[in-house]
Amino acid sequence: MKETMFREALVSLLEEKKYATLRDILVTLNPADIAGLFAELPERRLPLLFRLLPKELAAETVVEMEPEQQELLIQGFSDSELKEVIDELYLDDAVDLIEEMPANVVRRILGSADPDTRKMINELLKYPEDSAGSLMTVEYVSLRPTVTVEQAIRQIRRTGIDKETVYTCYVIGDDRRLLGFVSVRTLLVSEEETPIEEVMETNVIYVHTSEDKEEVANLIRRYDFIALPVVDEEQRLVGIVTVDDALDVMQEEFTEDLERIAAITPTDKPYLRMGVLELYKSRILWLLLLMISATFTGTIITSFESALAAQVALASFIPMLMNTGGNCGSQTSVTVIRGLSLGEIDFADLPRVLWKEARVSLLCGVTLAAASFLKLLLFDKVGMAIAGVICVTLFATVICAKLVGCVLPILSKKLGLDPAVMSNPFITTIVDAVSLIIYFQVATKALGL
Amino acid sequence: MKETMFREALVSLLEEKKYATLRDILVTLNPADIAGLFAELPERRLPLLFRLLPKELAAETVVEMEPEQQELLIQGFSDSELKEVIDELYLDDAVDLIEEMPANVVRRILGSADPDTRKMINELLKYPEDSAGSLMTVEYVSLRPTVTVEQAIRQIRRTGIDKETVYTCYVIGDDRRLLGFVSVRTLLVSEEETPIEEVMETNVIYVHTSEDKEEVANLIRRYDFIALPVVDEEQRLVGIVTVDDALDVMQEEFTEDLERIAAITPTDKPYLRMGVLELYKSRILWLLLLMISATFTGTIITSFESALAAQVALASFIPMLMNTGGNCGSQTSVTVIRGLSLGEIDFADLPRVLWKEARVSLLCGVTLAAASFLKLLLFDKVGMAIAGVICVTLFATVICAKLVGCVLPILSKKLGLDPAVMSNPFITTIVDAVSLIIYFQVATKALGL
Repeated sequence: MKETMFREALVSLLEEKKYATLRDILVTLNPADIAGLFAELPERRLPLLFRLLPKELAAETVVEMEPEQQELLIQGFSDSELKEVIDELYLDDAVDLIEEMPANVVRRILGSADPDTRKMINELLKYPEDSAGSLMTVEYVSLRPTVTVEQAIRQIRRTGIDKETVYTCYVIGDDRRLLGFVSVRTLLVSEEETPIEEVMETNVIYVHTSEDKEEVANLIRRYDFIALPVVDEEQRLVGIVTVDDALDVMQEEFTEDLERIAAITPTDKPYLRMGVLELYKSRILWLLLLMISATFTGTIITSFESALAAQVALASFIPMLMNTGGNCGSQTSVTVIRGLSLGEIDFADLPRVLWKEARVSLLCGVTLAAASFLKLLLFDKVGMAIAGVICVTLFATVICAKLVGCVLPILSKKLGLDPAVMSNPFITTIVDAVSLIIYFQVATKALGL
Repeated sequence: MKETMFREALVSLLEEKKYATLRDILVTLNPADIAGLFAELPERRLPLLFRLLPKELAAETVVEMEPEQQELLIQGFSDSELKEVIDELYLDDAVDLIEEMPANVVRRILGSADPDTRKMINELLKYPEDSAGSLMTVEYVSLRPTVTVEQAIRQIRRTGIDKETVYTCYVIGDDRRLLGFVSVRTLLVSEEETPIEEVMETNVIYVHTSEDKEEVANLIRRYDFIALPVVDEEQRLVGIVTVDDALDVMQEEFTEDLERIAAITPTDKPYLRMGVLELYKSRILWLLLLMISATFTGTIITSFESALAAQVALASFIPMLMNTGGNCGSQTSVTVIRGLSLGEIDFADLPRVLWKEARVSLLCGVTLAAASFLKLLLFDKVGMAIAGVICVTLFATVICAKLVGCVLPILSKKLGLDPAVMSNPFITTIVDAVSLIIYFQVATKALGL
């Protein structure tokens, strides 16, 4: 409510051309909030509003905006305005921006940057999109091991304003090889004349440029880092990934995993900003695919039509069998997928996981079959034979579901596929099919159909 | 592989009583890694290994360990050893530790702390478990507005070693009211004689002690903070939440959401460390509950048994209808739950979400019904009438699934319930029931059964 009123106030000021007032208000806001406001205002207003912002705030705001609006703004910029914005950006933010733009806009952006910046951006753009190299920035503080604490602090005072972070400084040798790191806190509490090499931490945890971004985020989270250094094949320091990037990567990866498990083709946009056609396209593919595979399970029922005709009551329990199989499969697959994401489980753990799931499925299977048996006899009054058929199938379904549910994600990851994609959709199909085959086979034999 | 060899080397050294060597190795490791190693070693070795660690490293390692092992260690400590460890901990870590311990251990821990520490810990323990108050620490740097930049840096030098973070300093008035903040970077690049109040940022984004921890993490992520200040009802600064806590909260909250959606009772342990009985208990409750609700859908089929007996072919398409309904429901509910978690959607957006889902479901419903119709006629050769019944039901199922899928989570959140709990399990039950009722009603009328 408050945000709408605020937005309407801004639009009024804009219409009344009260630019100085608008500017005064905007500069008190955080870039993330300004971007959020701009997203809800009419697009034609954006260029004007944007020009009210001071250079640094303007650049920080661009970074927080959605790609469509960034593109719109850039198209409205003159070449010198574009150059000003690009020059203000940290390199990793410039790379993020460029990665979302169409080719002609990219050419324009690169053309407006000065040659050194352009060279560095091109270097960063070479890295694959999900790698540490694509996340990192080159604006960090590097120190020689022989400088003193006092000299280091003076260096930070001089150059710190342009660095993405000054809080962790990296110590490098002549060949740029990473020797250690030292935090600003350590610098501030150490004796001024001490050489850096005496206070620096030499056990550096680092990643290579090719490291997966999810692993980068996991490391930052595990070790409570502010920044993580990135090296090339020769162990030379080439950039750093900061903790704010880790937070963003974690959010993106979670959302993507969740969408994959729910059979959605992942997109990167907030729900309310997605159009109807976009949502449709992200969902319909899997829906069609899964509908086709579900008809496969249907043909199993068709092949047992005579058995079903002889004992129609059997049909009533199909939903319960399939749902239970689905839930069992989900429980296991989701747990395993999460473990794979967090690096807690890997392919070598497959025997251990299988053994654990086998025992859990036995316990669950027995519990559910027993509960079901009682219920069928006492409430549904189907008779011992049918109750037996149902419970035997239920037991087998639970076991099958949990075993398939843990094997498929782990195998997928081993084969280089995304375990979340392989999860619920395929698991459900396999388990449903097995469940129905067992159901009708047992029923046919036990009931003499 | 490497880790196992390393671990075995350590055990050998331990058995050979080569304690000095062991200590030399351990001090090169990061606390998170030491805790990881300890977790895989025989428990009886822990007290001995732990005593090899220097005080500060020992305390940091305790923080990273699982609660069962923390308890084991503490039980093995003498009172003075316990006091040493507790005194070394940051207060928020001490609170986290205490929250996981049984009552007698808690009493012992509090008894060993000095009176001031005990008082502060008790203050922090009063906050509800999922609030900003329970996450925060009180070891931050606070400055008076009239001190100069130089005096501030000197204060950090003197006291910084004990602070959780020195990188953001908070400026408070006489009554401890939060006036602003200033980063260490700003201090380092500013003129030494400038009063703090001239360089500080006065637009402070803060939270109250009662704020939900997921919202705290969202704010830290949105604004790229290193720390977020926490105030009481009178706007007095009482603590800070640091970015490393935000990363941990994000991981916990996402795992919890995922587990809830998969009908698992959330636990906080890594999968491989959970015992068979624990896994069983976290899953069986929902499995039983959902099995019962699935039998409800079964009774719908039973009530239409005569229709089914007349046209047994109808049974073959029940899996496809139910699966499609389930997938449609999942896609929507998962997207909405994610939006609710990230603060992108709230109750006021319900009409907007409903309208969007209505249109998407129309598109999906028409596409799926059309594809199904073609397939039924060309491949299954069921005849126009039955194909029509199936496709009309499919269309209605898709629409119902997506509408229920967006309403239920949003309503749940409004009613103060966890939307993830309300999601797939209940949605599937409702959608299955509606789907089957429509199926048999349409079939009965259209086919004259």
